Amino acid sequence: MDNTFLFIIEVIGTIAFAISGIRMAASKRFDWFGAYIVGLVTAIGGGTLRDVLLDAPVFWMQTWWYLAVTGLSLAFVIIFRQSLVKNLRALLLFDTIGLALFVVIGIQKSLAFNFPIWVAIAMGMITGAFGGVIRDILINEEPRFFREDVYATACLAGGGVYWLTLECGGSEISQQLLCAATVIFLRWCAIKYSWQLPILKHDND
Amino acid sequence: MDNTFLFIIEVIGTIAFAISGIRMAASKRFDWFGAYIVGLVTAIGGGTLRDVLLDAPVFWMQTWWYLAVTGLSLAFVIIFRQSLVKNLRALLLFDTIGLALFVVIGIQKSLAFNFPIWVAIAMGMITGAFGGVIRDILINEEPRFFREDVYATACLAGGGVYWLTLECGGSEISQQLLCAATVIFLRWCAIKYSWQLPILKHDND
Amino acid sequence: MDNTFLFIIEVIGTIAFAISGIRMAASKRFDWFGAYIVGLVTAIGGGTLRDVLLDAPVFWMQTWWYLAVTGLSLAFVIIFRQSLVKNLRALLLFDTIGLALFVVIGIQKSLAFNFPIWVAIAMGMITGAFGGVIRDILINEEPRFFREDVYATACLAGGGVYWLTLECGGSEISQQLLCAATVIFLRWCAIKYSWQLPILKHDND
Repeated sequence: MDNTFLFIIEVIGTIAFAISGIRMAASKRFDWFGAYIVGLVTAIGGGTLRDVLLDAPVFWMQTWWYLAVTGLSLAFVIIFRQSLVKNLRALLLFDTIGLALFVVIGIQKSLAFNFPIWVAIAMGMITGAFGGVIRDILINEEPRFFREDVYATACLAGGGVYWLTLECGGSEISQQLLCAATVIFLRWCAIKYSWQLPILKHDND
Repeated sequence: MDNTFLFIIEVIGTIAFAISGIRMAASKRFDWFGAYIVGLVTAIGGGTLRDVLLDAPVFWMQTWWYLAVTGLSLAFVIIFRQSLVKNLRALLLFDTIGLALFVVIGIQKSLAFNFPIWVAIAMGMITGAFGGVIRDILINEEPRFFREDVYATACLAGGGVYWLTLECGGSEISQQLLCAATVIFLRWCAIKYSWQLPILKHDND
Repeated sequence: MDNTFLFIIEVIGTIAFAISGIRMAASKRFDWFGAYIVGLVTAIGGGTLRDVLLDAPVFWMQTWWYLAVTGLSLAFVIIFRQSLVKNLRALLLFDTIGLALFVVIGIQKSLAFNFPIWVAIAMGMITGAFGGVIRDILINEEPRFFREDVYATACLAGGGVYWLTLECGGSEISQQLLCAATVIFLRWCAIKYSWQLPILKHDND
């Protein structure tokens, strides 16, 4: 029951990530197949890197759901393009929820493979944020997360809250909820108030 | 005997892929070593990604043949540059045969590691098409396969034919032959008739 | 004792690699977090690729030292930016020593995992040179090592000397020292005398 709920949210997150990748591919005039691959990489790239680093079986090779859901996302973008543009806020909401859940999943999987908590936090960040990095590498753009906003940092902060709750003896469900809430809250504030990390100064500044 | 034949074709495919990578490096004025690496990545990049995802031993680390053959390809390009330009059609032929064989190898290896057929088809496509993607990432160009022509799609179609033949109870050799023939046929048609997948429309269109 | 010495040099090499990555991030006006990631990837990227290819446990996930040392490097760059500019030669010295040690570590780890010496030499080169390649991919620049100077080639030459010493029955410490000395010597000469490998000619030349 609990797992079904998590799986539904993960699918929603996958769709949101895939759609964001597909829309970016569309803005570059890729063909349908290229757009599918970019959407797929956005959705599963972070988790794939995590699984390779953990030496765990790669998650999307265990069930065809992820490939299918990305295909549905592509069909959705092709058919409902007009309505999508009017609902960017909803997309952003799904994207943020997906991000939070991906962080939680990354942390839990790492702990289940007996890695220490600091590795788990790093893997939570990689699961949430590196799909976008690999997407940007593929479409030959500078990864946005190096500049634009508090994205990966929100993932790390969520991981820190997970750790704190763990240390304070909170239940597993409270660890997950507080971690996800932190990611969502920080990400939302960052967008609303245009938060930014300080820029690194260079010799010529 | 059969394996010797397959190995010979694989070496020819490796040479064709390596030469295409080296020629692209030459057009960017890389030095010899850089050209060797770009040629190598083009030839073995897809199979390496496949083996990492399957958690299989990386194939080119089992025998020095692949590194040696890439070295020979580099020497060949340096010495016979003039003749190469006049024989681009022959190169394209080898390249297409190599692609078809890489797809077959990717599918077979995945099945041998007990993955389901849909994973095998994805790995066939990765084996054939992702060497070029990694090459384009390395030389900092937008991967061609997102736009240019029916390349990865031909790999997928070949995988589909493999599956069909498998389901219909065809022998292993017929699965391989029909899969390879499909890839070669589609790739050849795509070049001859300039086939293209539909482009994804964007908001501003 | 011996291991402590090696570990200290490895930390120095990590710091030098991280600082070079962070400085490059600064020149692109990344924020602090982006700079940390670029520094980290420069320092641990080559070893990570090596461990994934060897199917070995990823080294930086076994101890938090590497992440911590990269954080210290970032703090160092932020605080002592002015002094750094005046000590670029010292940085380059550390960087070269780090490179040599990374090559030795890559070779030894591969041999410890029972790979043949030619795989070990390739892994030594990957450990030393591919952190920079992955960094350049991340910041969306063409990898420098394809053009600029005798960098990866020095790693390979060091690996060759390691092999020679091994074949001639030299002790392990002499293998390591001669390998490291070769890398440092060649790298230093390449910078001092602007050595370059020949450029590959292209059809239009």
